[in-house]
Amino acid sequence: MEIVGFLSDFGIKDNFAGVVKAIILKLNPSAQIIDISHQVSPHDILEAGFILKSSFKFFPPKTIFLAIVDPGVGSKRKALIVKTKNFYFVAPDNGLLSLVLKEEPSLKIIEITNDRYFLKPVSYTFHGRDIFAPVVGYLLQGIPIEKFGKETKRYEVLSLAPLNKKEDLLEGEIIYIDSFGNLVTNIEDKIFNDFVRNKKFKIQVKGFIIDKISLNYSEAPARKPTALLDSFGYLEISLREKNAAKVLGLKKGDKIKVLIN
Amino acid sequence: MEIVGFLSDFGIKDNFAGVVKAIILKLNPSAQIIDISHQVSPHDILEAGFILKSSFKFFPPKTIFLAIVDPGVGSKRKALIVKTKNFYFVAPDNGLLSLVLKEEPSLKIIEITNDRYFLKPVSYTFHGRDIFAPVVGYLLQGIPIEKFGKETKRYEVLSLAPLNKKEDLLEGEIIYIDSFGNLVTNIEDKIFNDFVRNKKFKIQVKGFIIDKISLNYSEAPARKPTALLDSFGYLEISLREKNAAKVLGLKKGDKIKVLIN
Amino acid sequence: MEIVGFLSDFGIKDNFAGVVKAIILKLNPSAQIIDISHQVSPHDILEAGFILKSSFKFFPPKTIFLAIVDPGVGSKRKALIVKTKNFYFVAPDNGLLSLVLKEEPSLKIIEITNDRYFLKPVSYTFHGRDIFAPVVGYLLQGIPIEKFGKETKRYEVLSLAPLNKKEDLLEGEIIYIDSFGNLVTNIEDKIFNDFVRNKKFKIQVKGFIIDKISLNYSEAPARKPTALLDSFGYLEISLREKNAAKVLGLKKGDKIKVLIN
Repeated sequence: MEIVGFLSDFGIKDNFAGVVKAIILKLNPSAQIIDISHQVSPHDILEAGFILKSSFKFFPPKTIFLAIVDPGVGSKRKALIVKTKNFYFVAPDNGLLSLVLKEEPSLKIIEITNDRYFLKPVSYTFHGRDIFAPVVGYLLQGIPIEKFGKETKRYEVLSLAPLNKKEDLLEGEIIYIDSFGNLVTNIEDKIFNDFVRNKKFKIQVKGFIIDKISLNYSEAPARKPTALLDSFGYLEISLREKNAAKVLGLKKGDKIKVLIN
Repeated sequence: MEIVGFLSDFGIKDNFAGVVKAIILKLNPSAQIIDISHQVSPHDILEAGFILKSSFKFFPPKTIFLAIVDPGVGSKRKALIVKTKNFYFVAPDNGLLSLVLKEEPSLKIIEITNDRYFLKPVSYTFHGRDIFAPVVGYLLQGIPIEKFGKETKRYEVLSLAPLNKKEDLLEGEIIYIDSFGNLVTNIEDKIFNDFVRNKKFKIQVKGFIIDKISLNYSEAPARKPTALLDSFGYLEISLREKNAAKVLGLKKGDKIKVLIN
Repeated sequence: MEIVGFLSDFGIKDNFAGVVKAIILKLNPSAQIIDISHQVSPHDILEAGFILKSSFKFFPPKTIFLAIVDPGVGSKRKALIVKTKNFYFVAPDNGLLSLVLKEEPSLKIIEITNDRYFLKPVSYTFHGRDIFAPVVGYLLQGIPIEKFGKETKRYEVLSLAPLNKKEDLLEGEIIYIDSFGNLVTNIEDKIFNDFVRNKKFKIQVKGFIIDKISLNYSEAPARKPTALLDSFGYLEISLREKNAAKVLGLKKGDKIKVLIN
């Protein structure tokens, strides 16, 4: 239990992430803390959930994930430790973990309540520092998760934009824009392939029409929107060596349609 | 002496921070280097001092802090190692450390002059690489601080914007904007509470008036500026789930008044 | 073989760099991974080559460098492991390594082909995760480089903008802008000094004329463009405590002339 995967919307200008790491290392100097990202769009729980879900499988077994996107900090939202077959997850109970737990079922969920493991006085606005960081530090020391609070079966679940699936229409939306400007949709590759089979299709997003799937970015035609099935398993729209989001004027929430010809 | 807390205005595009870390690890491969921030506003010594002061207490004892915001690099400004009860601080002598040393008094100050511990030839523009990094590396090896130069009692002190405090007026200013856009003032929570007691008050910043302190961000009213006492101990202006600096058009140096009704 | 120097254009918003690190640590939990930069301008192989060349010498011997700027991912471009006297370099074969190898000659070059060391299924768009990361992880375990593929003598070489050098004219261009806005040219300090000797000279870039070399940033006159020989060994244009690129309106590719009076 030595590796920590750390995800937040803390940004990298302030000392927030550094202070959280300092507290973890104070309790366990040999911890290795891997930054997943601290540039989640501020307060965007869905984006954080999506990034965490696309990341956790690549980490060593027993990694502890600390995920803090927490617009409800200081309110009555709960704080959780979730044990799964391979990992631990520590996060506010606001839906952030629900995408992960669909793929990696929980074995035990603890609501964090035992303030013996908190940094005091607990502030109203920075539970990352005062609650989550020391809890991760003590977990790394091998404190059993039952000590941190009481077991619960419930946790918040994000309601995702559902896919609209008819016989010859599959409709989803853009849920994430990566830093190259590639537009990730909520249409998983398996669902896309099952829907299209070997039939001819059109992908429609805003005014743009795409009628094939490219294997990779360099195979794509220049200056034309390209569709591909990306490395995390989603249908993605991109533009060869360009920022598709900026050039095409597309953004999160924009609808995407797959139509059978 | 294995943990290094590293703060700079180097940004994250260039190799500056990476090269400094490489040199430290070359001299002590088991060092753990924690980034506090490399996004201090370029050349902003006050901002660096404020971030360091808000961070150092959370690090393990014996942490060595390396803080480089150094507009005077290559000029006659001195370079310092400061030993305090719990920590070491390595930085240019330009005031950066003065906020910290008000809270964590120095036990010994060494002016770094012994070029035996420098990377040669010493450049005129990157002492972070050529002087500060190897000095931290050798400190980690256990070289006594007296070896690095001669003791001094003097160090540069930043002159902070003073608070203007009258019987029914407390005036400060915005000194830091965090990456959520929250506006941190130079009014400490203790000073605010002593001033206000249980009387009615108004907080005035530009055209905005706020008449209460919120406990946390989510308790704050939507779409209205909010005042709270933040997790680092300052009066802060924010806007619920928004970037207060951008939406309200406020910036560093703007005055803030607390008035007793 | 425990230190990894990691350079990419992955940015810091996405989980790309974090996932690559996770895979390396899964194969070798005691690896120390130093970020050189993940903010290389997207797809800019020359910029990555320049940053790597300015960085590698400062790392401990036996460091493994992982450098991924890879617009051709999924196409037929090769992937390489290069062993030099002091280091290993793992990168796509697109010229990225050619600037380094001019200074640090290769002893052996392996084309990575043995998919036994890949993460499967190998995606078409993220070889950083599926090929480069596990190869670095297995290298750290001490697997001999011959196991990863077959030896080759050839690698792609970047064609750099050549210097135009006449008797009383030396013409180069801006090749890199650091995050302070300083403008790095392709004119090396040695070449500049050999050309100028002790004669009077003028440096001309866009409409600006500079007639001396300043030793450091603080010695430079305020509000006027300054030329200096920077810490990485290049002629550089800067503006005291300002962002020269923004204020002067200069950009990568702009020509710079040195004229003997």
